[in-house]
Amino acid sequence: MTSNKGSEASAPRIGVVMGSRSDWETMEHASTTLTRLGIVHEVRVVSAHRTPDLLFDYADGARGRGIQVIIAGAGGAAHLPGMLAAKTALPVFGVPVQSKALNGMDSLLSIAQMPAGIPVGTLAIGRAGATNAALLAASVLALHDPAVAEALDAFRAEQTRTVLDNADPRT
Amino acid sequence: MTSNKGSEASAPRIGVVMGSRSDWETMEHASTTLTRLGIVHEVRVVSAHRTPDLLFDYADGARGRGIQVIIAGAGGAAHLPGMLAAKTALPVFGVPVQSKALNGMDSLLSIAQMPAGIPVGTLAIGRAGATNAALLAASVLALHDPAVAEALDAFRAEQTRTVLDNADPRT
Amino acid sequence: MTSNKGSEASAPRIGVVMGSRSDWETMEHASTTLTRLGIVHEVRVVSAHRTPDLLFDYADGARGRGIQVIIAGAGGAAHLPGMLAAKTALPVFGVPVQSKALNGMDSLLSIAQMPAGIPVGTLAIGRAGATNAALLAASVLALHDPAVAEALDAFRAEQTRTVLDNADPRT
Amino acid sequence: MTSNKGSEASAPRIGVVMGSRSDWETMEHASTTLTRLGIVHEVRVVSAHRTPDLLFDYADGARGRGIQVIIAGAGGAAHLPGMLAAKTALPVFGVPVQSKALNGMDSLLSIAQMPAGIPVGTLAIGRAGATNAALLAASVLALHDPAVAEALDAFRAEQTRTVLDNADPRT
Amino acid sequence: MTSNKGSEASAPRIGVVMGSRSDWETMEHASTTLTRLGIVHEVRVVSAHRTPDLLFDYADGARGRGIQVIIAGAGGAAHLPGMLAAKTALPVFGVPVQSKALNGMDSLLSIAQMPAGIPVGTLAIGRAGATNAALLAASVLALHDPAVAEALDAFRAEQTRTVLDNADPRT
Amino acid sequence: MTSNKGSEASAPRIGVVMGSRSDWETMEHASTTLTRLGIVHEVRVVSAHRTPDLLFDYADGARGRGIQVIIAGAGGAAHLPGMLAAKTALPVFGVPVQSKALNGMDSLLSIAQMPAGIPVGTLAIGRAGATNAALLAASVLALHDPAVAEALDAFRAEQTRTVLDNADPRT
Amino acid sequence: MTSNKGSEASAPRIGVVMGSRSDWETMEHASTTLTRLGIVHEVRVVSAHRTPDLLFDYADGARGRGIQVIIAGAGGAAHLPGMLAAKTALPVFGVPVQSKALNGMDSLLSIAQMPAGIPVGTLAIGRAGATNAALLAASVLALHDPAVAEALDAFRAEQTRTVLDNADPRT
Amino acid sequence: MTSNKGSEASAPRIGVVMGSRSDWETMEHASTTLTRLGIVHEVRVVSAHRTPDLLFDYADGARGRGIQVIIAGAGGAAHLPGMLAAKTALPVFGVPVQSKALNGMDSLLSIAQMPAGIPVGTLAIGRAGATNAALLAASVLALHDPAVAEALDAFRAEQTRTVLDNADPRT
Repeated sequence: MTSNKGSEASAPRIGVVMGSRSDWETMEHASTTLTRLGIVHEVRVVSAHRTPDLLFDYADGARGRGIQVIIAGAGGAAHLPGMLAAKTALPVFGVPVQSKALNGMDSLLSIAQMPAGIPVGTLAIGRAGATNAALLAASVLALHDPAVAEALDAFRAEQTRTVLDNADPRT
Repeated sequence: MTSNKGSEASAPRIGVVMGSRSDWETMEHASTTLTRLGIVHEVRVVSAHRTPDLLFDYADGARGRGIQVIIAGAGGAAHLPGMLAAKTALPVFGVPVQSKALNGMDSLLSIAQMPAGIPVGTLAIGRAGATNAALLAASVLALHDPAVAEALDAFRAEQTRTVLDNADPRT
Repeated sequence: MTSNKGSEASAPRIGVVMGSRSDWETMEHASTTLTRLGIVHEVRVVSAHRTPDLLFDYADGARGRGIQVIIAGAGGAAHLPGMLAAKTALPVFGVPVQSKALNGMDSLLSIAQMPAGIPVGTLAIGRAGATNAALLAASVLALHDPAVAEALDAFRAEQTRTVLDNADPRT
Repeated sequence: MTSNKGSEASAPRIGVVMGSRSDWETMEHASTTLTRLGIVHEVRVVSAHRTPDLLFDYADGARGRGIQVIIAGAGGAAHLPGMLAAKTALPVFGVPVQSKALNGMDSLLSIAQMPAGIPVGTLAIGRAGATNAALLAASVLALHDPAVAEALDAFRAEQTRTVLDNADPRT
Repeated sequence: MTSNKGSEASAPRIGVVMGSRSDWETMEHASTTLTRLGIVHEVRVVSAHRTPDLLFDYADGARGRGIQVIIAGAGGAAHLPGMLAAKTALPVFGVPVQSKALNGMDSLLSIAQMPAGIPVGTLAIGRAGATNAALLAASVLALHDPAVAEALDAFRAEQTRTVLDNADPRT
Repeated sequence: MTSNKGSEASAPRIGVVMGSRSDWETMEHASTTLTRLGIVHEVRVVSAHRTPDLLFDYADGARGRGIQVIIAGAGGAAHLPGMLAAKTALPVFGVPVQSKALNGMDSLLSIAQMPAGIPVGTLAIGRAGATNAALLAASVLALHDPAVAEALDAFRAEQTRTVLDNADPRT
Repeated sequence: MTSNKGSEASAPRIGVVMGSRSDWETMEHASTTLTRLGIVHEVRVVSAHRTPDLLFDYADGARGRGIQVIIAGAGGAAHLPGMLAAKTALPVFGVPVQSKALNGMDSLLSIAQMPAGIPVGTLAIGRAGATNAALLAASVLALHDPAVAEALDAFRAEQTRTVLDNADPRT
Repeated sequence: MTSNKGSEASAPRIGVVMGSRSDWETMEHASTTLTRLGIVHEVRVVSAHRTPDLLFDYADGARGRGIQVIIAGAGGAAHLPGMLAAKTALPVFGVPVQSKALNGMDSLLSIAQMPAGIPVGTLAIGRAGATNAALLAASVLALHDPAVAEALDAFRAEQTRTVLDNADPRT
């Protein structure tokens, strides 16, 4: 399993997976945000359609390896987040990757419209969604980890300050 | 495995599966059409999200049991057809079941927009799609089964004749 | 604050809020599911547009009162989940209520398409989404509460069993 | 508060706010149009999600500072116009900024589909909407300000003349 | 011109027009709201397509008759609000009436997507939009009419109180 | 070929065709309108998919039989209007029949989005479109038939008068 | 009125109008096609919103000047074709110009979804629609003009031949 | 008929047709995939609208020439796949080509939403759909051709291996 560079020896707490290497352009914003918050995480490609057995193994083993939240990004007929959620009771947050033809509307509906029984918390299409998946995962960890809570509060305070300090868009 | 009523002892050649019991209202039109064409088939509920292991077992075992085509219906974030296709090289035809809020647009996109590598032949939303999935499966069997070919040709000829015999919509 | 009926004297851990009384028809499925999992929660109407100050007060006070996750349902131009998330770092899960004209597509986009910085985990439109918001909240609590974890696992096992026990949709 | 450059010492009558600095590319067309009509206005970034308290302060203080109309632009899950309208009885006109993935359809629905009770007058997606928000605000001021009425009539007459003077698109 | 029943002899200040008699089911909510706020208004059917000359006459004469705001409702290819705005510099607020086939999405786009130069402030599809058009028109009058300002503030305060007084949706 | 009831012995000048008997509920409004304008026409079911040869024969023979305009209604993947236009140079007007799942959006796009080279003049979804197809066909005949021109002008004058005579929607 | 270059002294039979100079990029394909078919036509900008009086004058005078068909292109909230049709009983064919934000979906619905009573024959979005509007107008003229009929048949025969002569897309 | 280059003398088993030369950019991915799997196929342009007779001839003759599956790609109002299916009982798989204005949503609905009676198995919009149409056709041939079955299994195994061997998207 590929752990994230520059993290301590501690085990990853968040799994960031995506259906294709091309999704990294989007999903790296989840990874960057987690790193900025000091949260150890792992990153890997798991394709629901091309590697279904890996998907099942990943979901089956996640809890045991210490993963607390799974962030999954996929595009088009995006089945990865929902199928991970079908195989694990861990919280799964889905990121609809912007697709070529339909701009991610297909990704969004494929992830958000889960039937009752198996939930996926869906974020926005594209980069904003990837960043927010990391922030949402952090908010979950923050419930029992004061360091993450502090980092998250600082992150939010800073982004508020940035807006306040740049109130005039013409400058 | 539930075989279709009234069929001979011969093994089913088509598997008709659906993600929920409520999909039967739609998918029975696939079963009815297959029966009308004399094609032995099986029918069962396989939920991608609530019974993922069954989904994998079903797909893994289908070819060995003599299944030649799988027809899969699902609604909303409809992952069943695509995940079956991920686990078997048999032809999989997907039927988007009309969903409550979005009228099946979510089902259609979740089934049709598969990434390159794993195909699902998608039919129309709802009852028309279920009927057509059966006809498409029959056309596949017909390539090597003269009895099915004959039944299919007869079916098509009759529906043509029905239109021709009822040309005036006012009567 | 209205606590849920039949719960012990213990403080609520989940807040279930909605923008209008008419959303209760949808959101009661969140409450029912939480109750079934034995999770103490509170329920109330908070309108982003008609009671914006209450919205702020609710979000400001939630963490201090012991709330760990907020579930927010709203329809149309649904601002409630996003504005709650703007005011608290607690995890917020949004339920798009099916709207009259656009069937909840407006609700879905208004909740899911949050800009980077403030996340809302969005569930499906309507009743399925309300049920799943409760399950997702439970999965968060389950990370540190073995009783909830056990209840959630039992819930999932039972729904799997129900599908397996009713494999033939014709019966 | 940032007043618009080149205006007289008189207090701004229109507030032009936007959710992000990146919205300025769109919203400057509102400001340019107001300036062309000689209407003193202020311009600033107010983020519903990153600076919710500022949003409330802005809305609370607007009437007292002499603001008569608020023009608010935002994209994606665009909550700024609706939340301003929730906090002030001044007329609020919303401009859906064209979003990256969904081309502003999410912005449009998030702004236009307000529930009964709190109105936002919504303009077109993007630059045309920003220009028109200024013209609509001017039409409100013109009801009691002959100078604005005259400027607006002149603006409209000139744009009519421009079309009439360039009737042949081939030249 | 049909004045509203029960109003004093004073001239109407708001014109409520609609493209078809069948739009009254929607637009009566604008009229009811104006009446509740004590605003004298007129109501009539003006069809952009079936009575284009009347449309022009209505728009040409509105300002002279003391109309300050026009509220126009229409469905489908809804041209009434935009064409009124083309003929008068008065503020025009458009209400997209829910259409049979496309649920008002066609109405919304036909009204909201005006090109730069001629503005229409668009409200939500259907009844909510009709009510809000009245409230938005009232907010315009309120800028120079203390009685309307007071009535509007009272209306808003009451709807806030109603939510606060009914916080528990289960009762 | 089924001629319309009650017409003289003269040959039909307009062909009204539809893909299915169930489309008659919509298309009868075309027939009724033509009859009201005194235009002899024929009505029949021609299915692009179930009777493709009939479709070709119909299009090939239309001009020779004196048909001047073809009105074609179909729903879903509506190929009838476009395929008729591919086989005849007569003007073809298409009516998108409201479909069950997608409310006619599929019908509209299947008819309107013809590639360059083969035109179909598309009307609105459903009954309004059927009525208008008849009016548009009448406007074509009216170019060289004073009786039709007169009937069409009378029709339009009457519908204008009806609106003017019923200006108050409350009565 | 601007007549088309290179035409004989004969009066124009088709009017090609558009809402904005920027629509020429699309609408020139209508003009080019008419010229290729030898049909004298006129071209001009008529803005429904910026020059409503011109629109009415144009529609009122068209028949008298010998115009037999009007082709009207517009984008966004595209009111030009429908308002022309409201003012003249001549056949009006509408071309939805591809809009910036919504790719012409707004244009299409604003033109196609006319209510019963006033028809517009709508073509495809963009260049294909402009070309086809010319071909459809030609098919109307061809009913009574053998030269146009011949030119149209030749045009269609040539485009068929072009496809047949280039059957292999790889060469 | 154009056979594919580099194939043996054996007759083509798959027909790959498309509505326009410009569709080749998409459809070549079907051809490339078939070639990679060693499946002899033919490629040609058949326009439903510009060469309807060729369409009928192609469909009529396909079975007799040994074609077992037809893959048809088209964009916009895409009638080619459905009309081929109307004329032959062979399996027809449709590829919605991404259209300029609506990004292939029109193509998708025009192909997928076939009425009951005539089926088309629809793949994803664009290149992914073209590749998958070839894979789906191969899965049909594989039912009775061990060589194709082996090639298909190898193709799928390799794409699985490629994902597994490149699990870290950052490298």
